[in-house]
Amino acid sequence: MDSSGRIERALTAAFARAEADEPPPQLIAAMRHAVFPGGARVRPSLCLAVAGACGDDAPLLTDAAAAAIELLHCASLVHDDLPCFDNAPLRRDRPSVHAAFGESVAVLAGDALIVLAFEALMTAAHVVPDRIAALHLILTRGVGMPHGIVAGQAWESEPGAPAERCRRAKTGALFVAATMCGAISSGASPTLWSALGERLGEAYQVADDLLDAIGSHEESGKSGGRDAALGRPNAIAELGVDGAARKLRQLVEATVEAIPPCAGRNVLSDLVRFQAKRLVPQQLGKSAA
Amino acid sequence: MDSSGRIERALTAAFARAEADEPPPQLIAAMRHAVFPGGARVRPSLCLAVAGACGDDAPLLTDAAAAAIELLHCASLVHDDLPCFDNAPLRRDRPSVHAAFGESVAVLAGDALIVLAFEALMTAAHVVPDRIAALHLILTRGVGMPHGIVAGQAWESEPGAPAERCRRAKTGALFVAATMCGAISSGASPTLWSALGERLGEAYQVADDLLDAIGSHEESGKSGGRDAALGRPNAIAELGVDGAARKLRQLVEATVEAIPPCAGRNVLSDLVRFQAKRLVPQQLGKSAA
Repeated sequence: MDSSGRIERALTAAFARAEADEPPPQLIAAMRHAVFPGGARVRPSLCLAVAGACGDDAPLLTDAAAAAIELLHCASLVHDDLPCFDNAPLRRDRPSVHAAFGESVAVLAGDALIVLAFEALMTAAHVVPDRIAALHLILTRGVGMPHGIVAGQAWESEPGAPAERCRRAKTGALFVAATMCGAISSGASPTLWSALGERLGEAYQVADDLLDAIGSHEESGKSGGRDAALGRPNAIAELGVDGAARKLRQLVEATVEAIPPCAGRNVLSDLVRFQAKRLVPQQLGKSAA
Repeated sequence: MDSSGRIERALTAAFARAEADEPPPQLIAAMRHAVFPGGARVRPSLCLAVAGACGDDAPLLTDAAAAAIELLHCASLVHDDLPCFDNAPLRRDRPSVHAAFGESVAVLAGDALIVLAFEALMTAAHVVPDRIAALHLILTRGVGMPHGIVAGQAWESEPGAPAERCRRAKTGALFVAATMCGAISSGASPTLWSALGERLGEAYQVADDLLDAIGSHEESGKSGGRDAALGRPNAIAELGVDGAARKLRQLVEATVEAIPPCAGRNVLSDLVRFQAKRLVPQQLGKSAA
C-alpha cells in the first residue's frame, strides 16, 4: 500500500473508535469535516518517508504515529481558525469548522481531535511496546508547552514575542515531530533526523507566507492576505516577495542537505523537492522550485 | 506523604516541564491560574484512594495518573467557562481563565493542559512500562469521543440529547477513569472499580446541581443559577430541591456499596461520605450527608 493509502487507513481506523456507539452527531461531523477530505497530508507523509528511509520495521506503529501527527495538525487548524484567533471563514476551500458548525462545536472538535491523536498512537503500543513512550513524548513536545504548536500560537499574541521562536514553535515543531517519529517508530535514533524537520518547517512557513500574500484562492483554499491584515510577523513583511522567494529556494536546498546519510536518501530528496514545488504560488513556481 | 501532598507534587513536576526555557508568559500564567490553587482535587484523591486500596505498589505511576486526571479536569473547566459555552465570569471564587487572560489564551490554555496531562502520564512510563498503555487508554476514554467529557459537553448543545448519557459523559466518565486508573496503576483489575466511579460521578453531578441552584456563592466559588438560566438538563428541574436531596442520599449509599471487597474498604467509605458532606449545600447539609 502506498503512503497515502496507509495514512487514510490509519485515520479511518482512529475515527472508527470515536464513532462507535452513536456519538454526539454534530461533534463527530465537525471532527470529520476537519480531517476528511484532507489536504496534502504533508506531515504524516514525511513521517512515513523517514520511517521508510530507516527500514520501517514496524509499519503499523509508523502508521499510528503518522495518523496522530495529522490529527494534531488538523486540531490546531480548527482552533487557529476560531473567531478569537484568525476568524477564518474558509479552510481547504470549504467553510472552516466554526463557520459550518458553530464556535462551541469547533472548540470541542479541536479538543476531541487532540485526544483522538494520542489514543490513535497508544492503540498501537502493543506493536513495539518499548518505542511508545519516546514516540508519545516527541508528539507532546511538538504540540505542547514550551516549544510546540500551542506555544507558537500563544507567542503570536504576546507583545514583543521573538518572531523566530514563534515560527519555529507554530510550524517547525510538528515537522520535527514528524521526522523524529518516523525514525523512532523504525528503531532508529531520532536526533539525526531533527534538522531535516526544522529546515522543512522553515521552508514550509516561508512558502505559506508567500501563498498568503500572492497565492490565488485556488492555491491556498483559504482567504488570502490575513498575515498583513492581522499584522502578524511574516516573511513577506520582512523580506519582500522576491526576498522571500529567494529564501525559500535556499531553504529547500538546506532541507535536502539536512537528510542524513541513509538508503532512502534519493527518495526523500525527491519528496522534499516535490513538496516545495507544490507549495510555491504558480506565479513564482518556475524560479522558486 | 499524604494524598494532597502527592497530588500537588505531581502537578508541580508536570508544570516544571511546561515552564522550562522561558515559555510564552501569558499562556503559562493562564495554565497556572487554571490549576493552582486547586479546588478539592476530588478526582486525583479518588485515584490515589483506590490505588491505596489495591496496594499502591507503584506510587510514582499512580501520582502521574492522578496529576493527568486533574489536568484534564482543569482543561475541561477552562473550555467550559468560555463565552461560547457557559460564559462564566468566575471559577473557584476568582475570575475564570478567559475573564482574566482573554478568550484566545483560554482556548490555548485548555489545549496545553490536555497535552500536558498525557505528557505527565507518559513521563512515568518507565516506572512499570506494561501498565502505561492501559492507563492511557482509560484516560482518553474518560475525556474523548464517544463517551468522555468532550462528548458530554457536545451532548449538552445537541437538541433532544439523551440527558442521562450527557451527564454520564460530562461528569461520570472522569470519575470512572479515576477509579480505574487507581486500580491499573497498582496492578489490579480495573473492571471491579468502574461501578464506584459511576455512582460517585452521579452523586457528584446531583450535588453540583444542588449547589448551582441553592448553594451560596462561598460554597460554589462561581455564579449560581446557570443551569436554569441556560436551560440545561439538571436534577433540580427534574426532581425539585427535596427530590434531588433525596436522590443524593441514595446515591451516596449506592456509592459506598459499590466499593469492591478490599483491604482499604473502610478508608474509602469514609472518603466517600466526607466528600459527600463537603459537597452538599449547608442549608441541606444535615439531612443530606
